[in-house]
Amino acid sequence: MSAETVDSREWVLRARPSGRPLDSDVELIARPLPTPEPGMVRVHNLVMSVEPYMRGRMGGESNYAEPYPIGEPLRAPTVGRVTGSDDPALPAGALVLHDFGWREHTLVPVGECRVLDEHGMDPAVHLSVLGIPGMTAWIGIDRIARVVPGDVVFVSSAAGAVGSTAVQLAKIRGARVIASAGSPAKVDLVRDLGADVVFDHHDGSITHQLRGALEDLGASGLDVYFDNVGGDHLEAAIRVINDHARIALCGMISIYNEATPQPGPSNLIKLIWRRARMEGFLLRDHLDARDEFEEQMSGWIRSGLVRPVHTEFGGGVAGAWDAFAGMLDGSATGKAIVPLAADGAGSSQVLGGTYSPDKEVQR
Amino acid sequence: MSAETVDSREWVLRARPSGRPLDSDVELIARPLPTPEPGMVRVHNLVMSVEPYMRGRMGGESNYAEPYPIGEPLRAPTVGRVTGSDDPALPAGALVLHDFGWREHTLVPVGECRVLDEHGMDPAVHLSVLGIPGMTAWIGIDRIARVVPGDVVFVSSAAGAVGSTAVQLAKIRGARVIASAGSPAKVDLVRDLGADVVFDHHDGSITHQLRGALEDLGASGLDVYFDNVGGDHLEAAIRVINDHARIALCGMISIYNEATPQPGPSNLIKLIWRRARMEGFLLRDHLDARDEFEEQMSGWIRSGLVRPVHTEFGGGVAGAWDAFAGMLDGSATGKAIVPLAADGAGSSQVLGGTYSPDKEVQR
Repeated sequence: MSAETVDSREWVLRARPSGRPLDSDVELIARPLPTPEPGMVRVHNLVMSVEPYMRGRMGGESNYAEPYPIGEPLRAPTVGRVTGSDDPALPAGALVLHDFGWREHTLVPVGECRVLDEHGMDPAVHLSVLGIPGMTAWIGIDRIARVVPGDVVFVSSAAGAVGSTAVQLAKIRGARVIASAGSPAKVDLVRDLGADVVFDHHDGSITHQLRGALEDLGASGLDVYFDNVGGDHLEAAIRVINDHARIALCGMISIYNEATPQPGPSNLIKLIWRRARMEGFLLRDHLDARDEFEEQMSGWIRSGLVRPVHTEFGGGVAGAWDAFAGMLDGSATGKAIVPLAADGAGSSQVLGGTYSPDKEVQR
Repeated sequence: MSAETVDSREWVLRARPSGRPLDSDVELIARPLPTPEPGMVRVHNLVMSVEPYMRGRMGGESNYAEPYPIGEPLRAPTVGRVTGSDDPALPAGALVLHDFGWREHTLVPVGECRVLDEHGMDPAVHLSVLGIPGMTAWIGIDRIARVVPGDVVFVSSAAGAVGSTAVQLAKIRGARVIASAGSPAKVDLVRDLGADVVFDHHDGSITHQLRGALEDLGASGLDVYFDNVGGDHLEAAIRVINDHARIALCGMISIYNEATPQPGPSNLIKLIWRRARMEGFLLRDHLDARDEFEEQMSGWIRSGLVRPVHTEFGGGVAGAWDAFAGMLDGSATGKAIVPLAADGAGSSQVLGGTYSPDKEVQR
């Protein structure tokens, strides 16, 4: 193992955000990375992702995951290349997935590093369709909503990392898909992905647009709602569910930035009238299915049935905080990816576009 | 078949209530009952029940059941004795269950009449623990919430017809049971039925009392919530659910009388964090299980493991409307029963008490 010291920059949490995160809640610091102890490897990070759940872990709300400690570097799913290792199973040069993002270089315990099969794909795919958001969509569509051929499925935030995958998986399962997204460009993209009817949620009441979409399909109502939004989307979906509908609760981005709780849907009694099931889920309960998922999903990616949708945020590690804020604001289409090193960027598979602090989203 | 004409009184719907039902929405009329045509039998009604769902069918809201037609007699589950019949399978004297209540005598199509095994029990038992509310509780506990030994189960409106049965069934299934009810007498009754901790929902915030109950049990949270109330009960229950909790949505009596929709729980995101399932159900989807239910439930009744809880409303058919209003107002403990004929009343199995327009509830 090489004994040289490596200089690295990393983002440290300074204060817990309440409501919208502020620049003063974090700090980018530089520090030399020590030589790895036995049981650790050193990794040069290539790409990391920013995700909505990080907002909750910063805030330290009573939640499904531990809060990030104040004074420590933030965490993020990251793909990197091993640059220092004594472990024969993790040789220098191996592509690995770990959770020590928000920094250029990092030390990672051997047990928290997973060696990736490169598949000749963009490393960022392991953070999107082959990673957490892709498997989350797969669990939601197959295990929670149990989509079957002929179902009418509504996916909200369908240009997002999870939503864009959920739309494509619902089509693979033989459903008719209604989707909502947040800009004309996103609507076009989601239509390209195969959704049958797509609307912009800024173009009028969700209920009105949802009823219009059902009319376009000649459908009586929804069999499945894959919810990434909560709030008015959830209330509108409940309004038009069919008997025995299934609502997979995956995320509620509408409330992540709210400091005070918003009232919920006023029509939950329809869950009784329609004998509907609403179920929340987290990926962590389904890790036993990872091999099955990876086998199916890598096949669909290779055959073109599932296309990754990424937005790359520029600026390297220094741009990561703006990338996170941009993702929360809806600037990202598909998975929000932050290339941390030169060879992590420039993929030909970027469907979503690129974004930098100086420019608008490019598609 | 006897050809004489029988005089009968019956309640006819005159207007659709909006909000609380008014006396002017209905009218009690007298009319002679004609001789039954072939395919019909004449029944002398003994006891009928009044139930919350009738409010929805009177109002004609978009709902899970057809509205009652204006100008027609109301419907209600009723036990009666056949007094005129050409059908050998339905001889005069047979005890039958049908849906043509709110009247003293009635003609019933042969196909809508079910002959009952008397079991030596009060006929009203076929309207409570052996009838719709009993089977509803059984479906909710066994099929929807899937209660297993050791579960911590919360039942709201636990002195009601469904709730009082759900409490007893959850105990039979090996759960620890927390229950809420609406008066000190009801709290005592539910404790007598075997609930481990019972509180009066008037005695403070539901959340506060629920947390206290969990503390008394040394339990971390709820595994199951059997919801008969909605509103603040539902929000409070969600606040304290355990991972993988199940919420069986059976009724929302808190909103049946509201003309405008009330906001729903503001904490549905906890269904994601706790990977919880919330599911509405109606008995009609589970009628295939009726034989299994009747076999189990009649055994539990005979062995004393399940006790019927009835409140008998006086006044005969003329008192039925007040009985319905009283039931909606929470005056009934257990199943609200209206004896329509002399031999339908006076059961020794009345645990809930009796109620007449002239008196307070007696227990």
